[in-house]
Amino acid sequence: MEKVDIGKKVLSANEAYALKNSQLLAQHGTPCFNLISSPGSGKTTLLVRTITDLTGTLRIGVIEGDIQTDIDAQRIRAAKAPAVQINTEGGCHLSAAQVSRALKELPLDRLDMVLIENVGNLVCPAAFELGEHGKIVVLSVPEGDDKPAKYPGIFAKSRVLLINKIDLLQGGAQVDFDLQRAKVDARRLNKSIEIFPVSAKTGEGMQDWYAWLTGQIRR
Amino acid sequence: MEKVDIGKKVLSANEAYALKNSQLLAQHGTPCFNLISSPGSGKTTLLVRTITDLTGTLRIGVIEGDIQTDIDAQRIRAAKAPAVQINTEGGCHLSAAQVSRALKELPLDRLDMVLIENVGNLVCPAAFELGEHGKIVVLSVPEGDDKPAKYPGIFAKSRVLLINKIDLLQGGAQVDFDLQRAKVDARRLNKSIEIFPVSAKTGEGMQDWYAWLTGQIRR
Repeated sequence: MEKVDIGKKVLSANEAYALKNSQLLAQHGTPCFNLISSPGSGKTTLLVRTITDLTGTLRIGVIEGDIQTDIDAQRIRAAKAPAVQINTEGGCHLSAAQVSRALKELPLDRLDMVLIENVGNLVCPAAFELGEHGKIVVLSVPEGDDKPAKYPGIFAKSRVLLINKIDLLQGGAQVDFDLQRAKVDARRLNKSIEIFPVSAKTGEGMQDWYAWLTGQIRR
Repeated sequence: MEKVDIGKKVLSANEAYALKNSQLLAQHGTPCFNLISSPGSGKTTLLVRTITDLTGTLRIGVIEGDIQTDIDAQRIRAAKAPAVQINTEGGCHLSAAQVSRALKELPLDRLDMVLIENVGNLVCPAAFELGEHGKIVVLSVPEGDDKPAKYPGIFAKSRVLLINKIDLLQGGAQVDFDLQRAKVDARRLNKSIEIFPVSAKTGEGMQDWYAWLTGQIRR
């Protein structure tokens, strides 16, 4: 009996869609980044603030991945950006095929950039290429500084690490988090990772992130 | 060509091990609960405080699931409880086969209860029975009150919801979290779910959780 390598087959089908997506994005000259994190790290709040603060500078379209509900896409649309919601109905990550369908619904010619908010999950989304130009991992302070060491896959693969909710580091040290430890552990896994400590709530540190993001656009 | 339903086959193999585990636990009269949450919700801190506060009342053994590192098992052993570390090496959830091997390493005859800390992931672990007597979902305040609605699977299946880090609700409302909304949404998915708002850091609310836990032991 012939041995069938299921894992490899599934990945290859996904990779074919990923290639198609990257070609479509290249045709439009539109960079695309894939935001990955645990549930509740603040990805949507980060996106809403980024879109609002960069109004007039960067036209951003968003693909929202969630298991259920369109809560997140509604929040993005309220910030006046086009957003396509994908509900995975139990699926733990976005697939390139889902993103391919969503890209068709976005007005790519009128966008400078596409940002994908993946399903909240620090593990599975790291294994599925979507045709993006890079992955951005978001780690929030209350999750703890040990997460790069404990979930190395996504930190090793990401172009950028956003350390969010740094406002919780101040004001009586309510949350224990060693910023230096998180940075050192992330760089041990990934020498070239860009790290931006930010608070999407207060705006602290967001300018450096915006500078990186706008620097990704070929003018 | 015969159609092979891969998903079903894998689940069935897992279920066979789960059945074996539940039989072994029944032989020893040892209840077992499976703690599931996102990374960084405070599962290990909850376990350490529970073990410490219940010393002399409840002899707890722990199975620690992590992708990499034995940081968590070390913390449990420092609290003087037997702990077996499982490293999934990239796997996004514990399997019943892994738990079966770990149960053999625990001194079940000298334990009142086994607690399993699953891999930090609010999605995948919900789909894999381990032979446990119940699932316990941990949601921490900084993750947001919308998580039951957005990740319904695990909330629908759990016996208990621990809402952790409630200390962050006080002191100037640094974190926005509507406790009532989280409770209502969880009960909409699961009428019989027990909900305990706690802070493993300050100890607030932990007595109710301990009363539930000790109530699970047949004396």
